[in-house]
Amino acid sequence: MKKQGVLLIISGPSGSGKGTVVEQLCKRDNFSLSISATTRTPRDYEIDGVHYFFHTREEFLRMQEHKELLEWAEFCGNYYGTPRKYVVEQLAQGKNVILEIEVQGALQIKKIYPDGVLVFLMPPNLEELGRRLTNRGTEDKDTINRRIHRALEEMELAQEYDYVVINDTVEEATEDLLVIVQAERMKCSRNPNIKKIFKGEM
Amino acid sequence: MKKQGVLLIISGPSGSGKGTVVEQLCKRDNFSLSISATTRTPRDYEIDGVHYFFHTREEFLRMQEHKELLEWAEFCGNYYGTPRKYVVEQLAQGKNVILEIEVQGALQIKKIYPDGVLVFLMPPNLEELGRRLTNRGTEDKDTINRRIHRALEEMELAQEYDYVVINDTVEEATEDLLVIVQAERMKCSRNPNIKKIFKGEM
Repeated sequence: MKKQGVLLIISGPSGSGKGTVVEQLCKRDNFSLSISATTRTPRDYEIDGVHYFFHTREEFLRMQEHKELLEWAEFCGNYYGTPRKYVVEQLAQGKNVILEIEVQGALQIKKIYPDGVLVFLMPPNLEELGRRLTNRGTEDKDTINRRIHRALEEMELAQEYDYVVINDTVEEATEDLLVIVQAERMKCSRNPNIKKIFKGEM
Repeated sequence: MKKQGVLLIISGPSGSGKGTVVEQLCKRDNFSLSISATTRTPRDYEIDGVHYFFHTREEFLRMQEHKELLEWAEFCGNYYGTPRKYVVEQLAQGKNVILEIEVQGALQIKKIYPDGVLVFLMPPNLEELGRRLTNRGTEDKDTINRRIHRALEEMELAQEYDYVVINDTVEEATEDLLVIVQAERMKCSRNPNIKKIFKGEM
């Protein structure tokens, strides 16, 4: 029997560097990224089942109705969601599944899948966050200030998360996430058959 | 402000190798072993406040009455217990405190100190446990069978623990315990002031 993987749900404000950290984790053999379902039109290079699961509005609403989505949201007139089936299959194969998602969606998932592990990724401090957002050079001062304000708001909700990781460097933050998954896999709640395994009955 | 350490409560059946693992952890700078209080007579080499805190029966009962013990038990006509004060002081200094204790005492502590982390150390399987107990060469077959029976009983209660660590080798088991402590320190519940720290207010 293969040991169930861990569903790792990562959130963090713009400038926390979650994209880069998730990329590092996905390079590992035993990690796989969750694939979202969407109703938006695929771009030229996008492959169904790789970048997204593409669906019609009708299909998406049917999935939603049949509770086949772990969470969903509407954005710019399109639906986006996390199909339960893909996640559950990967976990059953022993893969740790990563879900990069904003705070509201993350808390929504935790309610219906309490075994999911919520990690909030933080930039080390206010000055560094300002520096990271400024260095991008893509946003004006007003936008940066709005993002900082938003980050502080999200941190309030982070208290409902399981873990907080401070992203000082990508290497350390990636290592911290690996440590969290390793510890989670040793939780008694995730090892209900330990006595049977010990006795050689499983 | 120094970050609070983690109280690591380790149990495991005879033959799980917890003594050796605890010894390895204690070699680390940021770990310290809890010191028990007892009413038994000190042996020649034993130093008060190092090996035990030695107390009269009256003192011990007073401590118990004033809820100054995290747990206590009577054994061969003497009282043994874990003084709360020493543990709390070490944790406040940022030290992780290790408590090696049997299952009943561990569950007793978890009730009054829910931040304590309960780890159950397991021998890898039934055959290996038998081998370890036999190799000691100190116990007869009956005693060994009783110990195995007891180990299986304790494993039932282990489901109430937080983590289970399988002691295949001392090195790996020690590493697993370090991983657990590292992950625990990232728990949001242990970092209530993260937003203030981020804003430079602490």
